[in-house]
Amino acid sequence: MQRPSGRQPNQLRDIEITRNFTCHAEGSVLVSFGKTRVICTASVEQGVPRFLRGQGQGWVTAEYGMLPRSTGSRMGREAARGKQGGRTVEIQRLIGRSLRAAVDMKKLGENTINIDCDVIQADGGTRTASITGACVALVDAINYLQREKIITTDPLKQMIGSVSVGVYQGVPVLDLDYPEDSAADTDMNVIMGEDGGFIEVQGTAEGAPFARDELNAMLDLASSGIQELISLQKAALAG
Amino acid sequence: MQRPSGRQPNQLRDIEITRNFTCHAEGSVLVSFGKTRVICTASVEQGVPRFLRGQGQGWVTAEYGMLPRSTGSRMGREAARGKQGGRTVEIQRLIGRSLRAAVDMKKLGENTINIDCDVIQADGGTRTASITGACVALVDAINYLQREKIITTDPLKQMIGSVSVGVYQGVPVLDLDYPEDSAADTDMNVIMGEDGGFIEVQGTAEGAPFARDELNAMLDLASSGIQELISLQKAALAG
Amino acid sequence: MQRPSGRQPNQLRDIEITRNFTCHAEGSVLVSFGKTRVICTASVEQGVPRFLRGQGQGWVTAEYGMLPRSTGSRMGREAARGKQGGRTVEIQRLIGRSLRAAVDMKKLGENTINIDCDVIQADGGTRTASITGACVALVDAINYLQREKIITTDPLKQMIGSVSVGVYQGVPVLDLDYPEDSAADTDMNVIMGEDGGFIEVQGTAEGAPFARDELNAMLDLASSGIQELISLQKAALAG
Amino acid sequence: MQRPSGRQPNQLRDIEITRNFTCHAEGSVLVSFGKTRVICTASVEQGVPRFLRGQGQGWVTAEYGMLPRSTGSRMGREAARGKQGGRTVEIQRLIGRSLRAAVDMKKLGENTINIDCDVIQADGGTRTASITGACVALVDAINYLQREKIITTDPLKQMIGSVSVGVYQGVPVLDLDYPEDSAADTDMNVIMGEDGGFIEVQGTAEGAPFARDELNAMLDLASSGIQELISLQKAALAG
Amino acid sequence: MQRPSGRQPNQLRDIEITRNFTCHAEGSVLVSFGKTRVICTASVEQGVPRFLRGQGQGWVTAEYGMLPRSTGSRMGREAARGKQGGRTVEIQRLIGRSLRAAVDMKKLGENTINIDCDVIQADGGTRTASITGACVALVDAINYLQREKIITTDPLKQMIGSVSVGVYQGVPVLDLDYPEDSAADTDMNVIMGEDGGFIEVQGTAEGAPFARDELNAMLDLASSGIQELISLQKAALAG
Amino acid sequence: MQRPSGRQPNQLRDIEITRNFTCHAEGSVLVSFGKTRVICTASVEQGVPRFLRGQGQGWVTAEYGMLPRSTGSRMGREAARGKQGGRTVEIQRLIGRSLRAAVDMKKLGENTINIDCDVIQADGGTRTASITGACVALVDAINYLQREKIITTDPLKQMIGSVSVGVYQGVPVLDLDYPEDSAADTDMNVIMGEDGGFIEVQGTAEGAPFARDELNAMLDLASSGIQELISLQKAALAG
Repeated sequence: MQRPSGRQPNQLRDIEITRNFTCHAEGSVLVSFGKTRVICTASVEQGVPRFLRGQGQGWVTAEYGMLPRSTGSRMGREAARGKQGGRTVEIQRLIGRSLRAAVDMKKLGENTINIDCDVIQADGGTRTASITGACVALVDAINYLQREKIITTDPLKQMIGSVSVGVYQGVPVLDLDYPEDSAADTDMNVIMGEDGGFIEVQGTAEGAPFARDELNAMLDLASSGIQELISLQKAALAG
Repeated sequence: MQRPSGRQPNQLRDIEITRNFTCHAEGSVLVSFGKTRVICTASVEQGVPRFLRGQGQGWVTAEYGMLPRSTGSRMGREAARGKQGGRTVEIQRLIGRSLRAAVDMKKLGENTINIDCDVIQADGGTRTASITGACVALVDAINYLQREKIITTDPLKQMIGSVSVGVYQGVPVLDLDYPEDSAADTDMNVIMGEDGGFIEVQGTAEGAPFARDELNAMLDLASSGIQELISLQKAALAG
Repeated sequence: MQRPSGRQPNQLRDIEITRNFTCHAEGSVLVSFGKTRVICTASVEQGVPRFLRGQGQGWVTAEYGMLPRSTGSRMGREAARGKQGGRTVEIQRLIGRSLRAAVDMKKLGENTINIDCDVIQADGGTRTASITGACVALVDAINYLQREKIITTDPLKQMIGSVSVGVYQGVPVLDLDYPEDSAADTDMNVIMGEDGGFIEVQGTAEGAPFARDELNAMLDLASSGIQELISLQKAALAG
Repeated sequence: MQRPSGRQPNQLRDIEITRNFTCHAEGSVLVSFGKTRVICTASVEQGVPRFLRGQGQGWVTAEYGMLPRSTGSRMGREAARGKQGGRTVEIQRLIGRSLRAAVDMKKLGENTINIDCDVIQADGGTRTASITGACVALVDAINYLQREKIITTDPLKQMIGSVSVGVYQGVPVLDLDYPEDSAADTDMNVIMGEDGGFIEVQGTAEGAPFARDELNAMLDLASSGIQELISLQKAALAG
Repeated sequence: MQRPSGRQPNQLRDIEITRNFTCHAEGSVLVSFGKTRVICTASVEQGVPRFLRGQGQGWVTAEYGMLPRSTGSRMGREAARGKQGGRTVEIQRLIGRSLRAAVDMKKLGENTINIDCDVIQADGGTRTASITGACVALVDAINYLQREKIITTDPLKQMIGSVSVGVYQGVPVLDLDYPEDSAADTDMNVIMGEDGGFIEVQGTAEGAPFARDELNAMLDLASSGIQELISLQKAALAG
Repeated sequence: MQRPSGRQPNQLRDIEITRNFTCHAEGSVLVSFGKTRVICTASVEQGVPRFLRGQGQGWVTAEYGMLPRSTGSRMGREAARGKQGGRTVEIQRLIGRSLRAAVDMKKLGENTINIDCDVIQADGGTRTASITGACVALVDAINYLQREKIITTDPLKQMIGSVSVGVYQGVPVLDLDYPEDSAADTDMNVIMGEDGGFIEVQGTAEGAPFARDELNAMLDLASSGIQELISLQKAALAG
């Protein structure tokens, strides 16, 4: 088996994490997983949604979008069509849920962090790149809240990272790009914390069902890949 | 640990599968997982969506809804609010994707089977009950297509079933009801085929991240639970 | 003239009224007019809509829907299409208006009762079945309010019932099923109270205009049919 | 009993029917029932909606709207709110259904007549004024079709007219204006043909249910009022 | 060059401004620029939109619509399509912005004036007719506010008027009608105050770009045309 | 008068035009006017919208959007709110109209070029930056069409550029940034071609009306600024 990109089965694409990519957001990151590029911003807002008011806790939520020509052929603009598609909704719910697992809502106080992940170029793995980049933007927003003395303790429980794994031509591989993704038998998105625990596991048989040992092999790949990503996040934050 | 319902950790709720629940649909099933009750219909339609035309293959798709007062407090009616919520979209995509894995689209010919899962009473696990019941309705619709000689070979690849598993008070348990679901640390929905392979695995840490051995224990519970469900599906189809 | 069902011109279909059909709603009724089956729930909510606040009175409102495959061929799901159709809107306004005529809003206090009528199987007369079933659910919800001591006097002014009448092959007939309804010259929906007064009369010439004596014959049929329905409602409530 | 306007119980308001009110439509009428003023246009379009194609018959349909400040206090513009309200939908369905009863669809050929009723000033009875005015615009559009030799026989079956009747302070009265309408016990809209047959009867108890003799008295008033309106329509068409 | 209407290049169409066209609005004007006819109403509302609350100032805003058959062929009704088109949005923003320039918001106090411009017959120049007519309705609404002693000083800074100019067959012309508008090389809408200053200038090259001297010639025409319109507005207000 | 940025009145901000910013679009440009940054893509699509079919000519259209946190405080995402705001609609209509003026539609053949302008960072002048950047992306898309021999002649009539001008503290200035824009008395957006002709002129009095000599001074500034921008476009295309 030869991966289209020539990578090893357990090899990530080139990862780049650029902080302060735009100037207005409290956290703003351009993340690249190879040719997949996503702008992730974290915006701080005082107060929380209605269903949480008066409970002394914060909220983290996310929205996701793709520029119309981030893909090979132009997609209709969701704002013009008047609704977000099912895939968009599914992804932004995943991003929000994952990042909430990284934050102690009590320590965040009655503040909301809105995450926006906007894909400017897509080549597979946009949701995992989004989560990985957004976690860095989230940390920058949290640092802003502490620096401005809006909160006094650090609400970050741990860094989280995310990567896709799959079975391509019978072989488990890490961080699928689009040519692999569209041909894979199985596609799995994994989100893990720095502590090695699972935040979310979503595996889908695209062709034949997958067996328990394939699942295990994919989770092994994801575990090491995500630890590598978390190292890169930390390096970016230290930079 | 005592489950609120008094069940054993590996014990399903009472499962009932009633075929021909309504009279118009080619497949119509009322499925109950304890107090969770869902009407699953399968409607046959000649032709396929535009993106598949002329390729000599069929399509299976699904929609999901909850009656406004299927839940403890009344929810707004999605038709009146003018859009389906994110959770609805996520669930109906899951149902459709899972059932497509059970069908050989070439053998289905240029026919569409529309699955509708409408929850009339909710007590946790509505998506897994939906998939389990819808698979039976799907088989009835496929039988209709063969009986009417619209297709000549059986497109069903295998039965599929679905159940939720979770970690409740530190113990892996099968088929969570609402009181367990709302208090669980981890919630996982598993869809498997008769052959024991995974169609979809979706696990979410609601509280702390979950470890590999917890994942394994949950998958063991799901595997045996789903085989039990598939036996019940077959008994209903034989009835 | 022979009715397709073999019924006499003044004969109702088999009527069944099952209370407590689902477990969460304060009133929950499955009503059957022959093969037409509707789930009617009444949900109590504290407070009233904005336009009534502070006036010391309550509100009753209704929503109506059909499951996509409640009919012979599948209809698009209104929640997915993003709006309720004109027929749906017209029917739910009728249901709400009729039930409000049965309730003394001052005695209801600042409480709202939301009626949901969801058709699971349609064979003509869904709106009249809905009103008839919903009135029973409404009474159960009112009983709940009194039992819980949220209100202290009975706001029910009288029971109301509803039935369709029409002219089929030149003969006035009661309680049209779908084969009659789709071939009738005239279709009329009547809502009356226990006291024999009219709450709402809606007659439509489908083919030729109808004459005053036809109108009178239809109203006679409706009057006796509705009194029969109100007896069945009372029996169900006593059961 | 004294009517607010000083009219007799069986007296219409001043009725004016102005043809060719605007210049583009095939039929364009400004109708006034007292202070209620509605622009009714009939627009001819080749072809029919999809569900009627190839059946050799035509279609008549209607839309209704109110200018935001046609009423005492400004209403939100439906185009800006993004949907038509329930009352609008109910009224435009009534207008379309009534006018279709006046036309032989076979003789209309595969042509559509779109009726638009736009209320520029409202003082009660906008739906009955709309139907009465729209029937004149419809005739002008039908005359256009014949003059242009698009159709060769006259598809008009008969003129139709419409008026409201009600019980005001215990007395049945004809053609309610807004002060009467908002205080009436019963409100009924009647549509009849030139031949004296009923096209549609819609009666609603606003307060107490209404009795059979009240219904009869109201229908008597409506019958004579509508014949008077049809005379005025004919005079306008002859003018 | 001969204008289709036979007018001189610097000649307005026949202008009519009828006040009190409808009875409910505080200001109600029917304005005609030749065959273009627009109902302009100004509705007074206590309070201001949320973003202005508590700042002691008022607001003026506008909405625009066309009756479906105001044009040569029927347009879909925006309320039925569920959204306002881009042209509508652009025009109503222009109307609102222009009229705000005529009003001292501090002197208006915390009151809102809603302008509605509804085109009943279109023959080019609907936006300029709307602004010219709406300014008269606005003055009537302001007079109402003063007469009712809701405000004590006159918030009108000056009258404003608007007209279109263009280059038709190489010649700059004033107040284009539809035949000119659809054939013009350049189309410009100008809004000016009584003092001769520009409120808004919007010029668009429909064919070839336009040169500075053409721009100047068009602005000269607009200046004199608008002063003429303002005289007509004043005459109407004095009438 | 001192500009907040320290620029001379006739001085543009630093302009950067980066081609091939993303990899999928036929034309992809990142344009910066100081801190304002916009991704402009041009996507080629075979065929034209329905209203142009069979006329042997092409079409150019544009959509515009802002990332939610491109601005100082986060704006709601238009896709999530379910509609594009009025400002968005107004701007994308301007962009499309302007670029169509640069193209000979007959020479473009039955092909459509979709322009997407997505603002990733906003500091005033996003519409003028969009048009200036989009013209470069358009040329790249046109070059693609010629290179692929889809069309055989060059449909570009001339380059166009755009800049804002305004009166800030009484002084006419070029290329306003956000601090100037929000304080300016007058704001004007000008689009011109390489030949010095005007494509579009839109001037708005934000405070007091503006006089003819101010208009002239602003147009002088715009003319020289746009010629400078067109030189930069050409340099980028030559690069």
